[in-house]
Amino acid sequence: MSKALKKRSEKAGLQPGALFYLGDREARKADVTVFDYDEVSFTEQKVRAVEECIPFRDRPTVTWINVGGLDVDFIEGLGACFNLHPLLLEDIADTEQRPKLDEFEDYLFIVLRMLLFDEVQREVVGEQVSLVLGQNYVLSFQEDGGDTFDPVRERLRNNKGIIRKMGADHLAYSLFDAVVDGYFVILEKIGDKIEELEDELVVNPTTEVLQAIYDLKRQMAALRKSVWPLREIISKLERIDTKLITESTKIYLRDVYDHTIQVIETIETNRDLLSGMLDIYLSSISNKMNEIMKVLTIIGTIFIPLTFVAGIYGMNFRNMPELDWAWGYPLVMLVMLAIALVMVLFFRRRRWL
Amino acid sequence: MSKALKKRSEKAGLQPGALFYLGDREARKADVTVFDYDEVSFTEQKVRAVEECIPFRDRPTVTWINVGGLDVDFIEGLGACFNLHPLLLEDIADTEQRPKLDEFEDYLFIVLRMLLFDEVQREVVGEQVSLVLGQNYVLSFQEDGGDTFDPVRERLRNNKGIIRKMGADHLAYSLFDAVVDGYFVILEKIGDKIEELEDELVVNPTTEVLQAIYDLKRQMAALRKSVWPLREIISKLERIDTKLITESTKIYLRDVYDHTIQVIETIETNRDLLSGMLDIYLSSISNKMNEIMKVLTIIGTIFIPLTFVAGIYGMNFRNMPELDWAWGYPLVMLVMLAIALVMVLFFRRRRWL
Amino acid sequence: MSKALKKRSEKAGLQPGALFYLGDREARKADVTVFDYDEVSFTEQKVRAVEECIPFRDRPTVTWINVGGLDVDFIEGLGACFNLHPLLLEDIADTEQRPKLDEFEDYLFIVLRMLLFDEVQREVVGEQVSLVLGQNYVLSFQEDGGDTFDPVRERLRNNKGIIRKMGADHLAYSLFDAVVDGYFVILEKIGDKIEELEDELVVNPTTEVLQAIYDLKRQMAALRKSVWPLREIISKLERIDTKLITESTKIYLRDVYDHTIQVIETIETNRDLLSGMLDIYLSSISNKMNEIMKVLTIIGTIFIPLTFVAGIYGMNFRNMPELDWAWGYPLVMLVMLAIALVMVLFFRRRRWL
Amino acid sequence: MSKALKKRSEKAGLQPGALFYLGDREARKADVTVFDYDEVSFTEQKVRAVEECIPFRDRPTVTWINVGGLDVDFIEGLGACFNLHPLLLEDIADTEQRPKLDEFEDYLFIVLRMLLFDEVQREVVGEQVSLVLGQNYVLSFQEDGGDTFDPVRERLRNNKGIIRKMGADHLAYSLFDAVVDGYFVILEKIGDKIEELEDELVVNPTTEVLQAIYDLKRQMAALRKSVWPLREIISKLERIDTKLITESTKIYLRDVYDHTIQVIETIETNRDLLSGMLDIYLSSISNKMNEIMKVLTIIGTIFIPLTFVAGIYGMNFRNMPELDWAWGYPLVMLVMLAIALVMVLFFRRRRWL
Amino acid sequence: MSKALKKRSEKAGLQPGALFYLGDREARKADVTVFDYDEVSFTEQKVRAVEECIPFRDRPTVTWINVGGLDVDFIEGLGACFNLHPLLLEDIADTEQRPKLDEFEDYLFIVLRMLLFDEVQREVVGEQVSLVLGQNYVLSFQEDGGDTFDPVRERLRNNKGIIRKMGADHLAYSLFDAVVDGYFVILEKIGDKIEELEDELVVNPTTEVLQAIYDLKRQMAALRKSVWPLREIISKLERIDTKLITESTKIYLRDVYDHTIQVIETIETNRDLLSGMLDIYLSSISNKMNEIMKVLTIIGTIFIPLTFVAGIYGMNFRNMPELDWAWGYPLVMLVMLAIALVMVLFFRRRRWL
Repeated sequence: MSKALKKRSEKAGLQPGALFYLGDREARKADVTVFDYDEVSFTEQKVRAVEECIPFRDRPTVTWINVGGLDVDFIEGLGACFNLHPLLLEDIADTEQRPKLDEFEDYLFIVLRMLLFDEVQREVVGEQVSLVLGQNYVLSFQEDGGDTFDPVRERLRNNKGIIRKMGADHLAYSLFDAVVDGYFVILEKIGDKIEELEDELVVNPTTEVLQAIYDLKRQMAALRKSVWPLREIISKLERIDTKLITESTKIYLRDVYDHTIQVIETIETNRDLLSGMLDIYLSSISNKMNEIMKVLTIIGTIFIPLTFVAGIYGMNFRNMPELDWAWGYPLVMLVMLAIALVMVLFFRRRRWL
Repeated sequence: MSKALKKRSEKAGLQPGALFYLGDREARKADVTVFDYDEVSFTEQKVRAVEECIPFRDRPTVTWINVGGLDVDFIEGLGACFNLHPLLLEDIADTEQRPKLDEFEDYLFIVLRMLLFDEVQREVVGEQVSLVLGQNYVLSFQEDGGDTFDPVRERLRNNKGIIRKMGADHLAYSLFDAVVDGYFVILEKIGDKIEELEDELVVNPTTEVLQAIYDLKRQMAALRKSVWPLREIISKLERIDTKLITESTKIYLRDVYDHTIQVIETIETNRDLLSGMLDIYLSSISNKMNEIMKVLTIIGTIFIPLTFVAGIYGMNFRNMPELDWAWGYPLVMLVMLAIALVMVLFFRRRRWL
Repeated sequence: MSKALKKRSEKAGLQPGALFYLGDREARKADVTVFDYDEVSFTEQKVRAVEECIPFRDRPTVTWINVGGLDVDFIEGLGACFNLHPLLLEDIADTEQRPKLDEFEDYLFIVLRMLLFDEVQREVVGEQVSLVLGQNYVLSFQEDGGDTFDPVRERLRNNKGIIRKMGADHLAYSLFDAVVDGYFVILEKIGDKIEELEDELVVNPTTEVLQAIYDLKRQMAALRKSVWPLREIISKLERIDTKLITESTKIYLRDVYDHTIQVIETIETNRDLLSGMLDIYLSSISNKMNEIMKVLTIIGTIFIPLTFVAGIYGMNFRNMPELDWAWGYPLVMLVMLAIALVMVLFFRRRRWL
Repeated sequence: MSKALKKRSEKAGLQPGALFYLGDREARKADVTVFDYDEVSFTEQKVRAVEECIPFRDRPTVTWINVGGLDVDFIEGLGACFNLHPLLLEDIADTEQRPKLDEFEDYLFIVLRMLLFDEVQREVVGEQVSLVLGQNYVLSFQEDGGDTFDPVRERLRNNKGIIRKMGADHLAYSLFDAVVDGYFVILEKIGDKIEELEDELVVNPTTEVLQAIYDLKRQMAALRKSVWPLREIISKLERIDTKLITESTKIYLRDVYDHTIQVIETIETNRDLLSGMLDIYLSSISNKMNEIMKVLTIIGTIFIPLTFVAGIYGMNFRNMPELDWAWGYPLVMLVMLAIALVMVLFFRRRRWL
Repeated sequence: MSKALKKRSEKAGLQPGALFYLGDREARKADVTVFDYDEVSFTEQKVRAVEECIPFRDRPTVTWINVGGLDVDFIEGLGACFNLHPLLLEDIADTEQRPKLDEFEDYLFIVLRMLLFDEVQREVVGEQVSLVLGQNYVLSFQEDGGDTFDPVRERLRNNKGIIRKMGADHLAYSLFDAVVDGYFVILEKIGDKIEELEDELVVNPTTEVLQAIYDLKRQMAALRKSVWPLREIISKLERIDTKLITESTKIYLRDVYDHTIQVIETIETNRDLLSGMLDIYLSSISNKMNEIMKVLTIIGTIFIPLTFVAGIYGMNFRNMPELDWAWGYPLVMLVMLAIALVMVLFFRRRRWL
């Protein structure tokens, strides 16, 4: 976050609407694909210049332009082409946006966070996805051209399900749904990690485990920040007074809403689990410590009276009859043994050993 | 939960509306019973194929089709027969749903969690129950054909109470009520367990007790997740603008609402009890530890000065007159005894012993 | 609570509206009194059968029928006579109700918890009070015929204040007010107990004190559960659109509302006090422990170097000139004294003693 | 609070509207002053009997009757004269009221808590102030005739500011404002105390400091209870649909609202500060303890090996060549010194000393 | 805060509307600059007397008067010139205001807190900024003439972006935006500090680190108090029914809103981080302590049995055959070595060392 904050604080003072890429991936040439379809026709095409998009825009079919990589110039061009508000373009480039829904006159603007699990770093990485839903088009902007949208592409290509029969709003819903579906994948990975940690917590509660618990807590907090605003976005989409979203799509939105709630509840459950694990960790560390101190103190305590007895017979009084007894030494040794035994038994009976 | 998450993350990418059974029971042939009744007539019949249900559907009497076991094919058939939305069918099969109420044009869809106490595992197990309430029919879907609905069946068969005089909405209410009544059975079992634990906590605070407390806390959290959404479901049912629910049934719904609140309050009370027990556990463990350390330290402390005295008369100075006294040895022993007594008295008076 | 839960879980499966007494007092013959009055006339009469109530019902005067003891048969009879809804009758018998207000077409139904202080057990006991407010009658149902309503009876008999000039709604308000007034008595008793505990906490923080604090916390939680819903009941009564409650009575309800808020605030203050006492208890226990450990350790620490010195001159080296000095022994003793003094002074200066 | 609760619980059962002074100051003859003014005329007069107030009531000028001391008879008389509701009079006498606003047809009734700092006891004391705002009069009731209203009196006498140009609502606002201004004085005193404590906490964390922190926490809680309801009172005053409050006064009310929020925020900040101080206290106590234990244990630990060495050469084996060496004794002493030094260095390097 | 509270408590009793500078900077001659512009013309001018502002007020162009330094006389003059409410002027001078928005008939009044990072003291300092937005003018009041507004001035001078094309509302928005942008700078500085502390926490957890964490917590709390109210201010600005704010500016306000939410979320994240650091600090301190105690106790525990053995052979019994053995001494030394080794191995195996 610090890096983004630094960029943003450099940006302070620029006029609003100025495009400025905030993410930490290198800005680069955009990787743009256009899908144009209706129930019967289907075109998929890579484009390099904004101008190539214009013919699709003007057709009555549904057009989906997916822009991978935040190429500021391309975004500005596309913005001009689709008549998008400069603040909207700024938000696309500013990749530390909170998920949100903005209504404009002719289109809706939705910002989401797509989450991916980096198998190498073994941690969750986020990527901003911006959607613009117009009358018969959807524009989507990704930082990387991640593969979360692949199932939607497949369904479009193969005309699977009802997606090709529906309008642009259903496409936007499908992309939204794909993002939320991605959260379940993440939650599964994190769930596995939590289970691993739970086992290790019992066997070997090291500082690494503690660190891992804290890391997961931080990841859950980040996840929560990405998912929590979705609730209000979807509610707003359902209530919104716009022609852009049809009644039949609203039923599907309710479905995404349910999934979002499930994600949120799993997050909360995980947070509770992690807090409980933290408690158990601390309690087991302190138990272990106490156990050690107890055993050590008992050993010390048993020998102290014995040493005292030895000290007595180390005194140099002339007149100590016991010293002259033939059985004095073995007797004292027996007495000491007896004392030790009595103490051990006493500790046992009190369940201190 | 991890297993369901895994299944769900596999499901990510499928088109919405695709049926996919998420539970961990084996999917199998459905066990379907049809009840068809009005005040005078009553039919109860097992059916094997969807087609057998159609005649019941078309009669003016109230029809209740109870589907036990999530047979995806049968559910799809029934969905086609009653014209149910594909997303609704998906939700029936997706057994990790949060309790919810969805309004459709011709019917209401209610998802509940039925809770049963597994006497063998001694833990609470949940099962999803989906209800579809139409004009003159109720469809209910259970993962297992649990016996929670038996009292309702009995009342239908014996024409007990007003149930046969009322419409499909009253039947749906009765099923809802039966699910909520089941929570009281669970709460009683858990209450018994808590009482057992409270006694054991005083007698013998072992790690097993701690583990049991944490288990119960987790079960209460799961229970809470099942019950909490019922409040808003019932409120919504009371406010809903639909012909499907009559005024007289709304009064009965208020009754279920009160029961739900009672369940929630008992859950909250139990959570408080368990938190308090956790505090007492930790405090009693630490008290026990401190008690041990104190007694051990006192024993050590009494002997240290005595050992010092013995050390003095163990010195080899030539000129130590006491050593030559005839009564030197017994005198020193008496002095030591006196020191020990004074210390014990001192500790007693300060209430350290 | 466990007993009531057990009964309720037995009840699970009965048709709704079935009367079933849930409390732990023995169900017995009801003790029924009828008051019938207006500004000039006044009748007070014990009745044994429901039929005796009918003439009072039909008169234009205000009729108050107070039923003490949950005699299920009598309640059903009275219900039939006043045309009460079966669910309402069920709620009267189900004495684990949460305080609530239910509106019916011709009457309002209010459930309250009356709290009494059992002087023998020294704890708070609760009793459910149900009120039915109709056009010109009030029915009240108590588990026991407790004496909380006595002041209202006195005012009716002696025509004190405005109560006989007002309608049934004012009577219902007076009963409500009497219940809330009873809470202040309870709070006073509990306040006294808290003060006692605070004193004992300083003088002698034993485990009994801890137990007593936890008991009071539990009682405050129970009290809270009884009082908290009253807020919304009164608000609802003030907003309700019914002829049953006149404007002038609403002003009086506002007064009960203020008292309820006062009760709630006192409860919250007491909860804070008890939490604070718990903190002080734990802190004082741990301080005491630390104090002990410190003194013991210091004693040990002072003697260890001394014992070491004694040990040196207990060594058997042939060539130890000090041993042969005439003043060797007293010198060493002085040295030891000096060491001990220096250490005590050092500990003093560091404020460890 | 206990005393007031006791009185209230004695009061339980009295008819509502019965006047009963709850405070712990002695009820006594009221000290009543009347101010009557408009922009040009001004009268200030002490009155002894209610009858003397009547002529002022009937004049078109603004009349302010300030009653200091809760003389129940006088209040009842004034109530009759200004046609006040009996419940209102009861609330004036019941000095444990929560701050509130009650609307009546012809007047508004406001209860506030005036807070004063008792310089002798060094603690905050509260006093109930009740205001009745009618068309052209304000009645104010104080337990003591405290001096918080003096600035308002001065402004009236000297015709300073706009107060004499405005109506009764502005006067009521001014009194309200004077009460809120008083809170800042209290907060300053408490702020000073907190600063003192913060310094002492570092220098000398004694149990008195702990007690003082708890006392301040309790005072902040009491203050909070007095101030918190003011927010909703002022909001209600701004929204209220009454001729009694003019638009121009509403702007001034917004100003009091801002001050109230400031008071609340300062209270919350102080509560946070006190909680932080509590944490620091506990942590510093435990640090001190640990420091002591560590030093003591280190001293012990250094001498234990040395004593062991001395013990070895105190053994009486015939064949111990070292004992006969001429340099045996000094050599052993050097060895011991070396051991001690090594240990001290080891502890130093590990930063344990 | 204490100083401001002191001033405010001195102010208690003054008539409302009296100007009284509450800040701790010295009140001094104001440093006033006027910007007057439209799309084509642009004037920037320093003024010394209120009269110089009048011609700008009457022109149709947008006029921005920026007053740096709270010169009470100048503010009163400007207030008279622009017909501002006396309470508004009081709020400008009272620099401990909470951020707020007040609507007046002809203008809006906004209070903000500008935050600057004092590089010398290395802490956040706040400064109140008050904005008055009228039909074609904006008045801004700063305690110091800080440089936060410089980017806006630059954009005005260079006619960069759309600012000169828009009205006074856009200017007010720009100033608001500049203040919020300043928060990102602060958050970056604090973020750097937190990172530094996190590193130090691992390497060297001293009391200074603890103090620094508490300081940052306090700064975050102050920051929160400044930012939190902005949410409701902007929401109110968007909903407000006034001609002063145009639709196009509302879109820009939504942008500031998003930034505000981002600031709030970063603050909350930082608070969580700091709380976590506190936990880690406490846990690492206590771990270190425990580690020390453990090692020391182990050393003690190993030597206690050895000393006991030495004590045995220091006894003076006549009949101790071992003492006369030729190999007695080396044998006992070996036995001791063996005991020590066994104990070390035992501790190792139990992972206590």
